[in-house]
Amino acid sequence: MTLQDLDAKALADFTEEISAKYDELKARNLKLDLTRGKPSAEQLDFSEELLGQPGAGEHTTADGIDVRNYGGLNGITDIRAIYSELLGIPVEQFWAGDASSLNIMFDLILASYVWGNNDSDTPWKDLETVRWICPVPGYDRHFTITEHLGFEMVTVPMTDEGPDMDAVRELVRDPSVKGMWTVPVFGNPTGVTFSERVCRELAEMETAAKDFRIVWDNAYAIHTLTDEFPVIHNVLDLAEKAGNPNRFWFMTSTSKITFAGAGVAFFASSKENLDWYGAHAGVRGIGPNKVNQLAHARFFGDADGVRALMRRHAASLAPKFEKVLGILESRLGGHGVATWTKPEGGYFISLDVVDGTASRVVQLAKEAGIALTGAGSSFPLHEDPDNRNIRLAPSLPPVEELEVAMDGVATCVLLAAAEKFAG
Amino acid sequence: MTLQDLDAKALADFTEEISAKYDELKARNLKLDLTRGKPSAEQLDFSEELLGQPGAGEHTTADGIDVRNYGGLNGITDIRAIYSELLGIPVEQFWAGDASSLNIMFDLILASYVWGNNDSDTPWKDLETVRWICPVPGYDRHFTITEHLGFEMVTVPMTDEGPDMDAVRELVRDPSVKGMWTVPVFGNPTGVTFSERVCRELAEMETAAKDFRIVWDNAYAIHTLTDEFPVIHNVLDLAEKAGNPNRFWFMTSTSKITFAGAGVAFFASSKENLDWYGAHAGVRGIGPNKVNQLAHARFFGDADGVRALMRRHAASLAPKFEKVLGILESRLGGHGVATWTKPEGGYFISLDVVDGTASRVVQLAKEAGIALTGAGSSFPLHEDPDNRNIRLAPSLPPVEELEVAMDGVATCVLLAAAEKFAG
Repeated sequence: MTLQDLDAKALADFTEEISAKYDELKARNLKLDLTRGKPSAEQLDFSEELLGQPGAGEHTTADGIDVRNYGGLNGITDIRAIYSELLGIPVEQFWAGDASSLNIMFDLILASYVWGNNDSDTPWKDLETVRWICPVPGYDRHFTITEHLGFEMVTVPMTDEGPDMDAVRELVRDPSVKGMWTVPVFGNPTGVTFSERVCRELAEMETAAKDFRIVWDNAYAIHTLTDEFPVIHNVLDLAEKAGNPNRFWFMTSTSKITFAGAGVAFFASSKENLDWYGAHAGVRGIGPNKVNQLAHARFFGDADGVRALMRRHAASLAPKFEKVLGILESRLGGHGVATWTKPEGGYFISLDVVDGTASRVVQLAKEAGIALTGAGSSFPLHEDPDNRNIRLAPSLPPVEELEVAMDGVATCVLLAAAEKFAG
Repeated sequence: MTLQDLDAKALADFTEEISAKYDELKARNLKLDLTRGKPSAEQLDFSEELLGQPGAGEHTTADGIDVRNYGGLNGITDIRAIYSELLGIPVEQFWAGDASSLNIMFDLILASYVWGNNDSDTPWKDLETVRWICPVPGYDRHFTITEHLGFEMVTVPMTDEGPDMDAVRELVRDPSVKGMWTVPVFGNPTGVTFSERVCRELAEMETAAKDFRIVWDNAYAIHTLTDEFPVIHNVLDLAEKAGNPNRFWFMTSTSKITFAGAGVAFFASSKENLDWYGAHAGVRGIGPNKVNQLAHARFFGDADGVRALMRRHAASLAPKFEKVLGILESRLGGHGVATWTKPEGGYFISLDVVDGTASRVVQLAKEAGIALTGAGSSFPLHEDPDNRNIRLAPSLPPVEELEVAMDGVATCVLLAAAEKFAG
């Protein structure tokens, strides 16, 4: 029987019981953190040898470039070739940068704002309104960038195969809609991977703004939790064939493969988009850190080396996801107080609790020493209209801590629901 | 007797002789490059052990931070402390970033343009005109940034103790003058180091624009060619005491200390400026590459370790500068066709040839297989009003090649002068 269906007496009994559980939880004075999608120490150890790479005497790329000196805006071929093979995009369309793909996204959007992009008639700063499509729930740092620039963020719901394409198609008929955020594979926080149909429709759809861009943040392109790697849809190719060659800004990085914040980020796009980006990036500086790129190329060896490493990550992460899903099922299943995603990759589980209680759950957890990502953080301006979504990040804590934390979270979800239904 | 004082016959004889020399030069089919201030392979070898740093098992800062994971917008204390000691600026005012200080300058100016800086009433993009003071000759990549943003670049002449301060003081009475480029120590390309008086006057002067900023690009702060390190004037402190705490954006980097384009860049400023920068940088990304910062901290050891390394650079570079200066003196001295700087540090010699002939010299050199930085490149928009300045970069070639190249350049200077006087 669901919590909502309990009569007043049964609900009162339940509330008393769960309150007692919560008091016990608080009494433990926990200090646990489920806020961010950080790799665990165990995962970071997989790349420990990278800390000694490329090593004294090793400073020359396969094509003879000394990585210790200036030059090379698009990165070294050694690492670009590995990622080109991994993601099925020609190496000339695949640039390697410094550590952060978020930096590249910010720079691309800011350059479009200040100067206009290669298909703009007008820099976006000179337009009265710039609208941006934000599938929700989505990645908070994406939304912060478009918030920072004062764009009007228009949400579309996520389905189990990507953003609601009817809603997207309707929105892009508006010429002030200039772009869209996506995390197309094992999305943050839903874990959803865009279907081939969605990829194709995004590539093919007509947009009123000819300088419309989709930020294709493929942060989890190969971050499987199973034995299978996801099929990579080459959206650059789809878009090219559909006559929209400049539609996608494709990013990925090794942040959750080697070291978070000290890996290599990649930007892939059409030649025109790359030339345009280069014209701005080349004013901003001389080029990315090639020593770090060579270190990564040597550490990986080849594309199979990356895949082998991802299997180790999967082996480390899968039990954590199973643990979280198991606790959600055993503690919340049947109570009608929550639904959650069951991702096959990525870093997050998206938990929907009783409408109106997400912020209360986060508060209760906080008071019990369990830090959760703020309620609403997966929505533009941190405004979840239903106040129901919570992003769970199981990767960082050891599995024993995770178990304690998630059991505590379940208690908070139940208590908040009971309070709500009693109210 | 100077070339200009020769009679027609003597000039014709001289021209014939130097033309023959030039033809010999061309016949050698050289391929030499004096264009950029790149460290040589010998210099890069000094830091070869850094390629293996920090090494497997070494991933924790002195204050216990795992550099392999996300976090820390202002860099790790290990490297900040070394640079704080080296440059006499408190560690809390000294942030460490990725490799490029040019990136930071670009981001600071662009953020001021888009959002206004912490002292702006209006973002610079919304002003009719933004003017920027450019001491000349100066660094081409600086000028390219302000050109890219459409700022009106106003030149002031360099004296042997820094920019002409009377001219600067006059200019900053204009509220549309929002900033100024500087390379205060061993300037690019003059080699001039700003005197204490100039530093003090820049810190103390009244500016009409309260959001006026001086980009203090201290790229060569410790890049001596002698036994002496330059005195570092703490302009942040001078400005603070003068009631202008936010005047300076201070940068430096290890690009010409360890690896060019793969080192660590630093940004030092007032707390207010840092907070403002952090508010934008924290949207752009999560933080800089801490692994590379720890690698550098371990490689240096301490401030003395950096100084010891700089002495090795000086020992490598000084003979090259001596060689260039020797050839200039022996080939051009007494002909009245050129003057040049005699720097005690940095990466450049600034050569002034006969007015109107710099571009001809560069062309002649190019046709003889000697690449020089384009004439005018040390001026905004590449426009040297006198067409006389050439930036010489002696660091990259081995000394034997440098000798050949400079002897060739001298021939080109003489030939261009002879053509001019004959004309």
